[in-house]
This record gives sequence, C-alpha cells and structure tokens, in this order.
Amino acid sequence: MGDQQLEVKVWKSVSLPKDWLRRRERTPQENSQLFEENVRKIINGVKKSGDAALVEFTERFDKTKLRPEQLQVSSDEIEEAYGEVNQQQIGAIKFIKEKTTSFEKLIFEKQHLETTKDGIVVQNALRPIESVGCYVPGGRAAYPSTVVMTTVPAKVAGVPRIAVCSPPSAEGAINPLILVAADICGVDEVYRIGGAQAIAALAYGTERIKPVRKIVGPGNKYVTAAKRLVSKEVAIDMPAGPSEVLILADEAANPRFIARDMISQAEHGVDSIPGLITTSEKIAEEVLYWLKDMVVRVERGIMVRKALNEYGFIIICDNNDEMIANANRFAAEHVEIMTQTPMEIAKRITSAGEILIGSYSPVSLSDYGSGANHVLPTGGFCRVFSGLSVLDFAKRISIIKGSREGLKKLEGYVRVLTEAENLPNHYKAIAERIQIEGSKKKMA
Amino acid sequence: MGDQQLEVKVWKSVSLPKDWLRRRERTPQENSQLFEENVRKIINGVKKSGDAALVEFTERFDKTKLRPEQLQVSSDEIEEAYGEVNQQQIGAIKFIKEKTTSFEKLIFEKQHLETTKDGIVVQNALRPIESVGCYVPGGRAAYPSTVVMTTVPAKVAGVPRIAVCSPPSAEGAINPLILVAADICGVDEVYRIGGAQAIAALAYGTERIKPVRKIVGPGNKYVTAAKRLVSKEVAIDMPAGPSEVLILADEAANPRFIARDMISQAEHGVDSIPGLITTSEKIAEEVLYWLKDMVVRVERGIMVRKALNEYGFIIICDNNDEMIANANRFAAEHVEIMTQTPMEIAKRITSAGEILIGSYSPVSLSDYGSGANHVLPTGGFCRVFSGLSVLDFAKRISIIKGSREGLKKLEGYVRVLTEAENLPNHYKAIAERIQIEGSKKKMA
Repeated sequence: MGDQQLEVKVWKSVSLPKDWLRRRERTPQENSQLFEENVRKIINGVKKSGDAALVEFTERFDKTKLRPEQLQVSSDEIEEAYGEVNQQQIGAIKFIKEKTTSFEKLIFEKQHLETTKDGIVVQNALRPIESVGCYVPGGRAAYPSTVVMTTVPAKVAGVPRIAVCSPPSAEGAINPLILVAADICGVDEVYRIGGAQAIAALAYGTERIKPVRKIVGPGNKYVTAAKRLVSKEVAIDMPAGPSEVLILADEAANPRFIARDMISQAEHGVDSIPGLITTSEKIAEEVLYWLKDMVVRVERGIMVRKALNEYGFIIICDNNDEMIANANRFAAEHVEIMTQTPMEIAKRITSAGEILIGSYSPVSLSDYGSGANHVLPTGGFCRVFSGLSVLDFAKRISIIKGSREGLKKLEGYVRVLTEAENLPNHYKAIAERIQIEGSKKKMA
Repeated sequence: MGDQQLEVKVWKSVSLPKDWLRRRERTPQENSQLFEENVRKIINGVKKSGDAALVEFTERFDKTKLRPEQLQVSSDEIEEAYGEVNQQQIGAIKFIKEKTTSFEKLIFEKQHLETTKDGIVVQNALRPIESVGCYVPGGRAAYPSTVVMTTVPAKVAGVPRIAVCSPPSAEGAINPLILVAADICGVDEVYRIGGAQAIAALAYGTERIKPVRKIVGPGNKYVTAAKRLVSKEVAIDMPAGPSEVLILADEAANPRFIARDMISQAEHGVDSIPGLITTSEKIAEEVLYWLKDMVVRVERGIMVRKALNEYGFIIICDNNDEMIANANRFAAEHVEIMTQTPMEIAKRITSAGEILIGSYSPVSLSDYGSGANHVLPTGGFCRVFSGLSVLDFAKRISIIKGSREGLKKLEGYVRVLTEAENLPNHYKAIAERIQIEGSKKKMA
C-alpha cells in the first residue's frame, strides 16, 4: 500500500459519476466565506496602504523583506538575468515567442471586415485595451512559457502597457528565465509581487504601480479568488483551476503514448486530472499495465502517483456515441483523440479547451510548440469560455458610415419599429436627415 | 424654471470633470450592500422554491397572478400574437432580423482558420454554447429589436436552445410584438418572468425551467445586479447601464442633426447621457439654440428635458487632439463623428462601443438598420468589452494535429523548456513518440 500503490479508477460502460464531476469543479475551501474574507482583507489592505501593504504581505507570505522601491524589477536586474541563463534557453523562449506571435497575428488579422449594403458601410475594427496585467506563478518552478502565452497576445493586440507580476523567492528574486522571457516579449514593467496582493495592486494601483484595465494569467486559489473579487472593477480572464487531459481512444491507439500523456498530466500537481475514455477493454488493460510499469521509475513519481490515484480514471464505453457523450459532459481543458477516425470524432466534440488529433499530438506539443495559446479554460469552463488569445486584449468596434440614400431605404422600417418601441425622436433623427440637406460643408 | 427650463452644462476648453465621470459610471444605490442583499434574497428564493417563488415574485413585482404552468408562453399564445400585430410590423422585424443575421454570419465565417508549419496543423473552430437565456426588458414599451439583437447572434452561432425571459404586464401578458419577434428569430422557449427572479430561474433552473449556460441582454438595476450575483455559476455578458451618445463635431457639422441626436438619446430615460464635444464655439451655440427650439414641441418632452438637464453636456475644445483625448477618457457607448475628416478621427478613438461616421449616421441607424449589433457596452465598459456578437455565443477551440516529423523539429526546444519548468514527463511524452513507432494500426 501507500505511495507505491497505483489505483486508477476504472468505470465500465457508465458515464462519469456526477459527484465526481462536482468534486472536480470546485473545492469547498475555495468557496467558503472564510477563505473569501481572508482574501478580501489582503485586497483591502493594499487598497488602503498601497506599497506599504505590499511590502508587509510579501514579507508575510513570500518570506522576503523588500523596500518599496524594490517592488519593481529594475532594468539592471533584467540585464543581469541574461547572464544567468544559457543560449539554448534564450533560443527556446524566442522559438515559442515566434510561434505564438505568428498564430495570434493570424487570428488578429482575420477580424477586420467591411461590408457595404444599401449605401451603408459597416467595418469591424480592433482596438487594444490600454493596459494589462499578467500574473505569472512562481514557487517551485519557473514558467517562462506562461510569460510568453499571456504577454504575446497582448503585444500582438497592440496593448501599450503590459505589466507582469510574479512572486519573489525567499531571497527576494524572480527566476532569471521569467525576467528574460518578459524582456524578450516586450513587457513594460515587472513586479516581484505574488498572490492576492499582486492582483489588488494591479486592480487598484499603489503609489508606485498604476492600475491596469484587465488582469490575466493562471494562479493559485488566492490569486483566483482575488481576481473574482476585483472583477467588479477590472476585467479578468476565465478562472484557472487544476489542469486536465481527457484522452479518447479506440483499439487503434498506442497504449504507451496514452500512459505517457496521463503521467505527463499528473506531474502538474496532485489535483491534476488524467482521464481516459475508451471503447476498447484491451486498451484500458494495456494502459493500466503501462502506467504501472512507467510509474515505478518515473520522475516526480510521488506527485504523479498521487494525482493518478486521486483523480485519474478510465471509462470503458460500448461505442463512439457513448465516448463522445461522456467527453462533452466532462468538457475537458485538453482532449486527445487517438482513434481510427479522429477528425470525425473531433467534429462532434462540443466542449473542449482544445482538441489534439492522433498519435503525434500530446498535450506537451500544445504546451510548447503548436503556436496556439496554452492558457485554456479548466473545470468545465470551456462550455462557455475560449482559450486565451489576442481577442482577449482588444475590443471589436463597429464603424458605421451611413448615407442619405441608405437612410431613405430604411426609413419605413425604422418608423414602424420606433413607434412600437415608443422612441419617436429616434425616427425624427432619421426623418430630418432625409428632409433637409446634410452638412453645411462637404464632409468626408 | 421647472420642467420647461433647458440647462445643458457647457464646459469650455476643459476635460470632463472627474467627479462627473464617476457619477456616470455607478449609482450609489446599485452598489449598496442593502440593495445587493435584497436581490440575493430573490435569487435564493427561486433557488429554494422554484416555480412557486417565481409565481410569488411575479405577483409581488409585476402585479399579476400566474399559475406555474403559465410561466412559459404557450405556442397557442404565440399563434394568437400574430393576430395582434400588423404586416408592416412583421416586415420590419424580418428586415432587421435579416440585416443582423447577415452581419453576424460575416463575423462567424471569418473565425475559421487553418495553418500548417513544420508538419503541425492548427485549426481554429467555433462551437456553440449549448443553451442561452436572453433577457428582454418590458414595462412601458416593447423592445422587439432587443429580441432580435440578443437571439440572432445566438442562432447564427448554432446555439441549440435559446430561452427568452420578459416581464408580464399587469394582465399577465407579454407584448405580442415580443412574441412574434421571438418566433421569427427561432427562439425555443419564452417565459413571462422579469427582474432578478428571471435571472435566477435561468441560472439555476426550476421544476419547469432548465438552467442555461449563459445569460445575456439588457435590464434594469435588479436584472444587472442579479446577473452579477449569478456570474460565479453561469456566464453573463457585460453589465448594462444607461445609454450614451458622445458627438464629436467641428464647424463642418450640421447643428440641427446634432440636436436631434442628443434629443433622441435623451428619450431613452432620465439617466441617458447626450454629450457633445466640439472644436467650434459657434456649433456649440447653434446646438444649444436648436435644442431649445426643438425641445419645446418634442415628444416625450419631460423625459427628454430631464435627461438633457441632468446628464447633457457640451465641451468646447481648442483642437482635435483635445477633443479626441476627451472622447477616449469618456469611452462612450456610441460615438458620432461629424467633422471634416471623420475617418481620421475615428482611427484615433481607442475606446467606444461603436463609431458612427459623418452626417448620415445617427445612433438610430445603428439601433435599427446597420446590421451591427446594438447591444453595446455602456458606462466606460467599452474600454475592455466589445458589443454583443456571435462570438459571445460560441467558443473558439484549437484543433491541433502533430506529426512525428513535427515533433522531431520541436524536440530540442521542448527539452530545454520542460527542464526549466520542471516538467520532465512532458518531454518524455514527445521523446517516446520520436523513439518508437506510432500507432498500432493506421490512424487518420
């Protein structure tokens, strides 16, 4: 028993139990009033005492004592950070920056449209949000890829001010890879502040930190709760929860690849969710075999085993319809499809953060090298939210140019509708333009 | 003095006072804890007692007694509604439905993209949200155009279940134009429920009403507060506040058109905001002259005068730069530009719900006939939010198909990044696919 045991749940021919699904969506602690009150106290502290509160909370939570003027990382420190990373690392960061930039640009450029009918021109244009704060988790590891995924789409959208917040280590430092990534991505300001206090500083500003209009990026439960609490005043992205993969497979799949991907998911944290739904009992057995085989000598083994035991599952279905229905009920962050006709199945997936097709599309491809953004909705939020993209950093604005002839064509309809809606002066605004000659001078 | 007096504020060469801007953004009552508590009580009542609570609240707030089976409007009633509207009205509703549909389709079709690089294919696909609730205000007037603007984009996105809620009259009826519009737009369910109780029913469901995944549409302060309160569990669109127009004009503009548009804005309600920013003192004077002239014999005069006196303003600026800076600070729902080079100025507007160009583009054109959606962010929310569109009813999902060759090209970068991020099993998922032959059988 104990840490060495592997006990992945296997359900046969059933849908995922409801209580299990509910457990995954929310932890009771994060929903408790007490927890929310504690986070609110931190936010109010920053609102009231500004930088002094940031210094105090950083000492309390991150165990490092900063002076207020150290809250922002200096350009000298960023310079120095380059000395602490190697050329391969810089190359890898530049690589995913380029990949992400070119895909976000594709999305961005698609948005412009123009149409003319009845003498009325309508354009759709994008305008960047004026300032954005990106939260980058710290702690046990550095996540330069999170810097890239949150700041690059903001940059492509044309956001003129991008600030990054990340918690400092006990030595008061931010990992040099984070600093180098921020610099490569063109971030304007980096602050060594973490947790709810970082979210409060970005939302309300302090003496040294100007507030931003939108806050994005994943974080722990304090960060997530703080984002929700400030969301009345500042925009936020979707809530972030534990990462998930749901693999759909039939007898055509390679069980070793499936096991590898479940293990790779499990290493994110003890609450990560690695699931498999398969129409093949044989595949289920083989995946279990490989999981047991691999887990013995896997890196980060304790965490991997714990996540697999706690949240891992295998469901054996009778047919593709059942498999697809289960997948749509689950609505996973990542859906991998390893079946004979994966594109056919992908077409019927109505809710997923993203879909990975075939044997050569592990989640780690999408995490690092596909170009598509890897900040994706978790916990079933993909039922209504999309992954992060350039569209989260810009507003679509319709630009409408009418003409006298155009108004003439509409006039009758507008009269009927404004009568129904009791807005007679709305009609007059059109009627007067038809009756009298337009501008005093020629207008473009 | 009194109702007949017109006292539009005129500020010269200054930016809009800050306290004035703040006043516009939020009313103290809506922000009060007491108000929120009252709305929460309604929501909890519906959560607890379902249809019985809906019947009770409808009796209390809408002064009409319904039986639970009357909460949903029957197909017979919708049939009957056609008998109570005329052919012109049906024609007008069909006209804006067609206009709106074809513009939303344009946006929708733009979103599909596909790109292939290094043997990795990435597609972006849209999938509809599975169910949506649209709130349509009732009260003094019927708003069939709101039915069209909220349900058509959902329909274009492919949402399989669209429900409409609208408050009943004291006779227990919904205006037949609302019912006919809902029917023409292909709405699946119509409920005669209003206020916070409607939002609670859509969010949590009752015995007779299935919950929806997202709630959209404008409403009064109870509806807006309720949407915010349920937004932890169900997605909502941006908050709706009083409607606004900000007109930018130079000496080329026709002051009568400006006055008409300010009056047309003012008739929405006593808290509507009609503003003018101009570089021409002469235009300011002439607009004031025409406002005074028109307001004497205008329909809905008391409300128009009250809104103009309470929230109307004219700012006289020295130059275009000042005018544009003021407009961006204000961030209005509707921005009309009546200047010599309106497109040049439009390019520099960073925040607006939508922009209307030249003499022949009054807000009432965009409200009824441009094709672009007229549900737009108010109260400065256009700094971060876009107007409603088909994109609010669908999720973008990336579909990624890798290849062995593609993984080989990335392998080096992924190794470096997964080492930095301490995710060794993420690398293994790729390495194993390069080392061993892929699927057991051939996969598409």
